Amino acid sequence: MCARVAEEGELFVAELPTSRVYLNEDQFFPGWVYLVFRRHATELYELTPEERAALIEDVSRVAQALAVVFQPVKMNYELLGNQVAHIHWHLVPRLAGDPDPRSPVWQTAHDPSPLPPARVRDRIDAIRRAIEAT
Amino acid sequence: MCARVAEEGELFVAELPTSRVYLNEDQFFPGWVYLVFRRHATELYELTPEERAALIEDVSRVAQALAVVFQPVKMNYELLGNQVAHIHWHLVPRLAGDPDPRSPVWQTAHDPSPLPPARVRDRIDAIRRAIEAT
Repeated sequence: MCARVAEEGELFVAELPTSRVYLNEDQFFPGWVYLVFRRHATELYELTPEERAALIEDVSRVAQALAVVFQPVKMNYELLGNQVAHIHWHLVPRLAGDPDPRSPVWQTAHDPSPLPPARVRDRIDAIRRAIEAT
Repeated sequence: MCARVAEEGELFVAELPTSRVYLNEDQFFPGWVYLVFRRHATELYELTPEERAALIEDVSRVAQALAVVFQPVKMNYELLGNQVAHIHWHLVPRLAGDPDPRSPVWQTAHDPSPLPPARVRDRIDAIRRAIEAT
């Protein structure tokens, strides 16, 4: 994760004041992105109040952009770090056609659904434009 | 949820500047609390920047208090709202003895584990004292 923050790559979406945004490779839930805090830290309470305020502004801005693009019923915001203990948020629009709308995404077993490269680029462009406009 | 915020009840832990904290009735994951934003809103981007900053301070403070009490390997912070669309965070200390430490809590099927009333009171007291000291 720390190395990934240092590069852009084909899933990179946007650079924000405290973080970078990447499209989740599995797009079974359309619009799932993750937002990675730029400096290394593992828990919210390791940050200064100013860093927390700036980070939650990034999170809110990206969630609002995803809402514009994907028109979700609800946004989900999750900071877990059980596998990679570097602060990163999963931001997941839950759409009207969601297979299990009342449950966390983690309860929906599914095969990963990566998009073909051209659709990855289109989706990233749409999200990036919405972030820039937010 | 909105009604619950208006009352205290036996699972109430603490009142914070923007929110109230309650012990999750199921304590299979020890220390699981939820933190409910006091005014009604469903998404982070409906708040003012000042409200977001104050809310994330509440979240961080409670997470730090839980870390003092439960010594987790990692804290999990989740704002979902798929069932109750009022801003509330699940704050879950993931302990060394966790049955599936690399996965979200939602993937661990288990019978609910409510505590007997005296242990509920002890746990709430310990968390409340840690919040007050944080």
